[in-house]
Amino acid sequence: MTALAHAALEHLTELLGARCLTDQDSAQRYGVDWTKVWAPAPSAVLLPETIDEVQQIVEIANEHGLHLVPSGGRTGLSAGAVAASGELVVAFDRMNKVLDFNAYDRSVTVQPGVITQQLQEYAEQQGLFYPVDFASAGSSQIGGNINTNAGGIKVIRYGMTRDWITGLKVVTGKGELLELNKGLIKNATGYDFRHLFIGSEGTLGFVVEATVKLARQPKNLTALVLGVPGFQEVMKVLHAFQSELDLTAFEFFSDKAMAHVLAHGVSRPFDTDCPFYCLLEFEQVSEQTADQAMAVFERCVEQGWVLDGVMSQSLQQLDQLWQLRERISESIAPHTPYKNDISVTIDKVPEFVEAVDKVVQDAYPDFEIVWFGHIGDGNMHLNILKPEALPKEDFFEKCNNVSKWVFEIVERYNGSISAEHGVGMTKKPYLGYSRGPEEIAYMKAVKQVFDPNNVMNPGKLFDL
Amino acid sequence: MTALAHAALEHLTELLGARCLTDQDSAQRYGVDWTKVWAPAPSAVLLPETIDEVQQIVEIANEHGLHLVPSGGRTGLSAGAVAASGELVVAFDRMNKVLDFNAYDRSVTVQPGVITQQLQEYAEQQGLFYPVDFASAGSSQIGGNINTNAGGIKVIRYGMTRDWITGLKVVTGKGELLELNKGLIKNATGYDFRHLFIGSEGTLGFVVEATVKLARQPKNLTALVLGVPGFQEVMKVLHAFQSELDLTAFEFFSDKAMAHVLAHGVSRPFDTDCPFYCLLEFEQVSEQTADQAMAVFERCVEQGWVLDGVMSQSLQQLDQLWQLRERISESIAPHTPYKNDISVTIDKVPEFVEAVDKVVQDAYPDFEIVWFGHIGDGNMHLNILKPEALPKEDFFEKCNNVSKWVFEIVERYNGSISAEHGVGMTKKPYLGYSRGPEEIAYMKAVKQVFDPNNVMNPGKLFDL
Repeated sequence: MTALAHAALEHLTELLGARCLTDQDSAQRYGVDWTKVWAPAPSAVLLPETIDEVQQIVEIANEHGLHLVPSGGRTGLSAGAVAASGELVVAFDRMNKVLDFNAYDRSVTVQPGVITQQLQEYAEQQGLFYPVDFASAGSSQIGGNINTNAGGIKVIRYGMTRDWITGLKVVTGKGELLELNKGLIKNATGYDFRHLFIGSEGTLGFVVEATVKLARQPKNLTALVLGVPGFQEVMKVLHAFQSELDLTAFEFFSDKAMAHVLAHGVSRPFDTDCPFYCLLEFEQVSEQTADQAMAVFERCVEQGWVLDGVMSQSLQQLDQLWQLRERISESIAPHTPYKNDISVTIDKVPEFVEAVDKVVQDAYPDFEIVWFGHIGDGNMHLNILKPEALPKEDFFEKCNNVSKWVFEIVERYNGSISAEHGVGMTKKPYLGYSRGPEEIAYMKAVKQVFDPNNVMNPGKLFDL
Repeated sequence: MTALAHAALEHLTELLGARCLTDQDSAQRYGVDWTKVWAPAPSAVLLPETIDEVQQIVEIANEHGLHLVPSGGRTGLSAGAVAASGELVVAFDRMNKVLDFNAYDRSVTVQPGVITQQLQEYAEQQGLFYPVDFASAGSSQIGGNINTNAGGIKVIRYGMTRDWITGLKVVTGKGELLELNKGLIKNATGYDFRHLFIGSEGTLGFVVEATVKLARQPKNLTALVLGVPGFQEVMKVLHAFQSELDLTAFEFFSDKAMAHVLAHGVSRPFDTDCPFYCLLEFEQVSEQTADQAMAVFERCVEQGWVLDGVMSQSLQQLDQLWQLRERISESIAPHTPYKNDISVTIDKVPEFVEAVDKVVQDAYPDFEIVWFGHIGDGNMHLNILKPEALPKEDFFEKCNNVSKWVFEIVERYNGSISAEHGVGMTKKPYLGYSRGPEEIAYMKAVKQVFDPNNVMNPGKLFDL
């Protein structure tokens, strides 16, 4: 650590006392996310408790030319919150309170360190529903959700995190506190910086408070699992159901995914083996809704779009059917999967999947490709399993080639190299496949506006 | 016109031929919106037909230091599209085609000059629904809707224009074409400039193409008109219904509004006179939904929150009930109303209305205040009628005082000085009541990034 950094550290210790941590354990714990590629190496971990402390931290960073990395639940999958280069980690664990509930607006104001699942439970206690949900909800924090615009499994009905944030307090890279949109629904007074900060991966400033809209609790959720002969038919099934029902989810997974999850102990939904499976969910608000769903199902069978299917008759069955989708990840984990999270518009999904399959299988015929994802919003999770005999290093090297080919196909189909996991450091080299050079230049210029000294999470998203 | 401008005009005539208009009629027609405060005085009116022409216009403007004003349906209420200072009007009337429909994504790609109602009708032809709707939908253009983030009467269920735009092509103030978000639902690749451009009132660039998501058509819309004893009860009624049903609208209007609309020839819904009225609408998806609505209604009556009410039994009755709300504006038009469009969070509406009533009535007891609006999203339209005996000039002068008082109350209640009409020139002096000085400084800096020579709609939103 340089003399300058020592002076800064004194400053910070004065400000935060024992909440400025410099021990190895804390550095190891707070310096990483779920990607384990970069070794954590922060200079210190800071645990502010107030907005004022956050502002002072940013001011000190500007004074001393330090780099700050925000840290929430550290469940990120793109190394957006990794501190690998002597940065200061600013962790929001101590700013984890629900500040206010507003029954008429059906909104709740929270600090950024509130855990997603706590927010979901809080909403439930108020008879309401926070609909953004995903596998890591038990440890991710709402501040992190906002910084990555987290999506998950209910996007087809409820949208992304972006759609639920009505107000945002942020501390910019200049240390200024902005109150963005103040919980309003309608506010036509110029640039909506709230949406600029959502999904900005901490590169413009820190989220220090958020007002979150809540929804009505869904009633009597019902799931259908359907076996489908081909990808074109998946699309037709989606279209048929979406024309009649408000779906709360439309997931798909391939026969290979099904084989793994069944081997993992989840119950088989029906006997027929099919190349693809869909899981769709809707609110059964009345008996008529169930009748409607059955009518669409029968029409799909008649058309040959569906080979077999089952509908949940209880909450327990609903949970069971969801396990077919939700436990895929853990069922393939032992195979050291290469993972990629990409999206295209829905209509292009079948062609896109075919193109990726072809390029991978042509080069590496021994690779097993497992597809699953949120097909209702064009978001696919590509998983490639390591052949048992292949050494890890060789597999990773070959997967680097795969990444490049996949992103070239993404670019050809006008898609996104990161549907919901963000760019961080892992996808930074590939940003140009999804965003044009002018657009990236504007991003850099906008960062300069809010963070002129580049103290906020530098080296994430892009290099200046 | 200066020599410089002449050179520019030659340039533009070369580019556009007869689509570069300099006659007085065109100037008068294209230089204004529905606000009639500023006299139109554009140097010329340009009618580009392609994105390339738009880019060249912007390049010429940068070269010659000209100012460009975007022009859509010119139905704006804040002078955002008024050219009063020799600007060039860029009108999108010739870029009015539907370019593509995507059945699986339920999206349509349009040029900016498509009229809102045409988009609604196009959606209907596809068995779908474009839910952003408001009084001027018959002449407003989708490009203008995007530039002001238009809202309207279905926001409680469907959100603002922002919520329906999945892709945006824009030409920035530097003349660069950006393809923002490309119709994707999930795209976590850095700053979402799409949302920065939406609502930016043409100050960053021109919208030259948009991909718009469509919804399922609503089924069997049903309206209730309820008479309510006080504003606190309006809130309780909103809360009671919203807990049980997905409302597609929740409007309110005062007894004075009701008196005007009845005098205007609309049928009385029921005999009881009440201080306030609510109009709420929902999809009656099954008989159960109607039963649910009736149960809530009865509970509200028992609690004393509702004095009387009626529910539509047919589409014709639905239309009739809506006239009570929709024809208020024309019923008060002969009284030269002062209008203001403001919002606060829903829970603060009763206090806010009371505070405005008090300050206005204390100063001007002869002013008749007519309230109506989209209470379900905290958006109120304040209307003050000119006393017959009072000369227009005196009325307008007094209304200037009213504006200031109203905006002071807006600021106190953390609200918005413009809920859905934008800032333009009419609300520019008051922007500071809704947005902090740092935030306004960041807005100006961001404008510099996208429009360094200030060619894009200068003098709107703020002065640089």
